[in-house]
Amino acid sequence: MFAVIMAGGSGARFWPASRERLPKQFLAITGDRTMLEETLARAERIAPPDRTSIVLGRVHADLTKRTLSGKQVEVLVEPRGRNTAACIGLAALHAKRGAVRGVAEDEPMVVLPADHFIADVESFARTIRAAADVARDGAIITLGIAPNRPETGYGYINTGAVGGESLEQPYFRVRRFVEKPDYQTALGYLSGGDYLWNSGIFVFTARTILEEIKACMPELHEGLMEIERAINTPGYGAAVERVYGRIESISIDYGVIEKTTKPIYVFKADFGWSDVGSWQALYELRRAECDRQGNLSLGDSMIIDAKRNLVFSNTDRKVALLGVEDLVVVDTPDAVMVARLDRSQDVKKFADQYRGR
Amino acid sequence: MFAVIMAGGSGARFWPASRERLPKQFLAITGDRTMLEETLARAERIAPPDRTSIVLGRVHADLTKRTLSGKQVEVLVEPRGRNTAACIGLAALHAKRGAVRGVAEDEPMVVLPADHFIADVESFARTIRAAADVARDGAIITLGIAPNRPETGYGYINTGAVGGESLEQPYFRVRRFVEKPDYQTALGYLSGGDYLWNSGIFVFTARTILEEIKACMPELHEGLMEIERAINTPGYGAAVERVYGRIESISIDYGVIEKTTKPIYVFKADFGWSDVGSWQALYELRRAECDRQGNLSLGDSMIIDAKRNLVFSNTDRKVALLGVEDLVVVDTPDAVMVARLDRSQDVKKFADQYRGR
Repeated sequence: MFAVIMAGGSGARFWPASRERLPKQFLAITGDRTMLEETLARAERIAPPDRTSIVLGRVHADLTKRTLSGKQVEVLVEPRGRNTAACIGLAALHAKRGAVRGVAEDEPMVVLPADHFIADVESFARTIRAAADVARDGAIITLGIAPNRPETGYGYINTGAVGGESLEQPYFRVRRFVEKPDYQTALGYLSGGDYLWNSGIFVFTARTILEEIKACMPELHEGLMEIERAINTPGYGAAVERVYGRIESISIDYGVIEKTTKPIYVFKADFGWSDVGSWQALYELRRAECDRQGNLSLGDSMIIDAKRNLVFSNTDRKVALLGVEDLVVVDTPDAVMVARLDRSQDVKKFADQYRGR
Repeated sequence: MFAVIMAGGSGARFWPASRERLPKQFLAITGDRTMLEETLARAERIAPPDRTSIVLGRVHADLTKRTLSGKQVEVLVEPRGRNTAACIGLAALHAKRGAVRGVAEDEPMVVLPADHFIADVESFARTIRAAADVARDGAIITLGIAPNRPETGYGYINTGAVGGESLEQPYFRVRRFVEKPDYQTALGYLSGGDYLWNSGIFVFTARTILEEIKACMPELHEGLMEIERAINTPGYGAAVERVYGRIESISIDYGVIEKTTKPIYVFKADFGWSDVGSWQALYELRRAECDRQGNLSLGDSMIIDAKRNLVFSNTDRKVALLGVEDLVVVDTPDAVMVARLDRSQDVKKFADQYRGR
C-alpha cells in the first residue's frame, strides 16, 4: 500500500492565523504538531515514508520540505491548485511509473487530506487496511462518517445494499453522492440512517483510478499522459506547467467517482473524524481542554469573568479577556480578529478583503 | 497668572494602551494629540509656556521633554508620586522662589490635571480668568461640573450661598466636599441641584495655598521649606528625595481644601468636561465619530456586522471584528485586550496582574 497526502488547501477559514502562504495544514491547531505533521504521522501507520507522496502548491514547497525534516517522502508540486482530480491523477501517475519507490500500479493507494483531524489512529489504520484489501480487486472505496448533526457544509454518501463484510462490519455499495444539502434535507439525512458524510478519504489502486480518469475525464487523462512522457526528462516542469494551464479544476468526487461504472463501496469510519472546518469546529473538537468557564486558550491569555471563548495566538503577546462570552479571539503578528464563535464560517470574508497581505 | 499641569497619573484604566511607563496623559485617545499636548495647548490660552510648570514622575521626564519640543515650560520632577498636595506644594514653592520666571507669589496659579478632556477651550479660558480675579484676593477657587448622571466614581462639592457674580453668573461658597458617594446618594445629588462634580481644577495664589498647607499639613510644609532652602544649590535633588521619602500621600482636596478657613468658592464650569476615566467614557465622549453601526475605530479596522464597539490600536496591525457588540478591543505591541465596554472600569485588574511589563 502507499499513501498520498493532499496538502493543497488555501486556508481562508482560519484567518487570520491561516493565510494563502500559511494555510490550515501548517498550523498547530489540533495539538502541538501542525495538521500536516499529524497527517504524516498517521500515514506512517499505513505506509512507510518512502512510499508516501505529498501533493501541494509551489508556494508551500519550502515549508513542507522543512516539515519533512529529511524523511524520504516524495513531494509532488502543482504549479497551481486544480482540485483533487488533477492532484490524485498526478500522484497515481507517479506511482505507476515507479517514481514512488517499489510501488506497482496494482497496489492500493490511500488518499488523505492533510488538514483533517482523526482521534483514534489505531482504528483509522485498521479501517484503511481493510478497505485496501477490497480496493486491490479494482473497487473504489470511500470512507463515510455517521453524521451527528444536520451539517449543510459537507457532501453526503447515500448507502445502498451491503457489499460485503470486513472487520466484522458490513460495508455498502454507494447508491449516490449528494452535494451540500439544504438544512431540511440534512435533517432528513440525519434521521434516515442511510446517509453518511463524505470524508474525502479514498482507497483505490493507481491502475483503477487512472482507468476511470480516462473514462470520465479524457482531457485530464490526455494531460497526465503528456506529463508521463516527460517524467525523468528535463522537460518535466514545463510539461506540468502546460497541462495545469489547461485542465479543468474539479474534484475527484464530481469528476470521476460519481460517474464511475466500477464497483464502488463505502466503509463506515468510526475513528472520530473532523475536517476542522472553522474556529467553532476547533472549539468543539477541543472542548475537553477548556477551563471551568469553558474557555479554550491556545496561547498566552489572562481571563477575568469570561465564558466559552476560544483564544488562539501565534505571537508571544498577552491576550486579555474581560466579561466576554462565546467569542473567538485570534492574535497574529499582523492582524487580530474578534468574532462571535457561531459566526466563524464567515471569517473567510476577511481573508477575501485582506488578500495578498 | 501661571499654570501648573499635574502629569503624575499612573494610567491603569486604559490598559493595555496605558502602562506605568506610558500613562493616559501620553496617549492620543481624545484626538490626534496626546492628552498632555492638549492640556499644554489649553494652558497656553491662560499663561505663556515660560509661566507654566509641569509636575511629573521621574519615569516620565524624558517622554515629557520630548512632548515639549523646546517650549520653555518648567519641568518639576517628583521622585515618587505623593498625590496632589505635595505636587501643588512643590509647584507653589517654585513659583514663590521665582523659579518660574517673573511669577510673584501673589499671582493666581491654576492647577490643571494633564489627563482631562475639555470641549470648549474658549469658555474654559474665560472661566479660569474670572476665577483668577477672585483668587487674587486670597480665596481658594474650585471648578465644579453640573452632573448629568449618578456617577459614583467622583468627589462632589455641595454648594452653599452665592459668593458673588462673575461673567454674569453667580458663584457659590463651598458648603462641604463629599468623597465618592454610593449610588442612591449620587442619585439624590443628581436631582437635588446643589451638588457639583469636583473637577480637580483649582485656582489660588501660591501664597494662599502655601499658607494653608502650613495650617493644615504642617509636616508637608516643613518638608517644602527644606526643599526651598536647597533650590539653586547642588543639594536640591537630595533634598527632594529626602522629603518625598517621608511625606504623606494625600490629595489637596482632603489634606487642605476641605479643612481650610479661607474663603472657598466653586465656579460652575460649563465648557464640556470629562476626566475620561475609562474606555467606556472615551467611547461616550467620541460617540459622534462612530460609524452608522455605532463602532468607534481608533486604528486600522475591518468590521463586519458588528455594533457599538470601540477599537483602539497603537500598532499598524489590522483589527477585524465579526458579529460582536458592545466591546472594547485594544491592540498594542505586547498585549491585546477584549472586554465588554460596560466592564471597562475593571480593566485595571489586568494592569495589576501584568505589573512591570
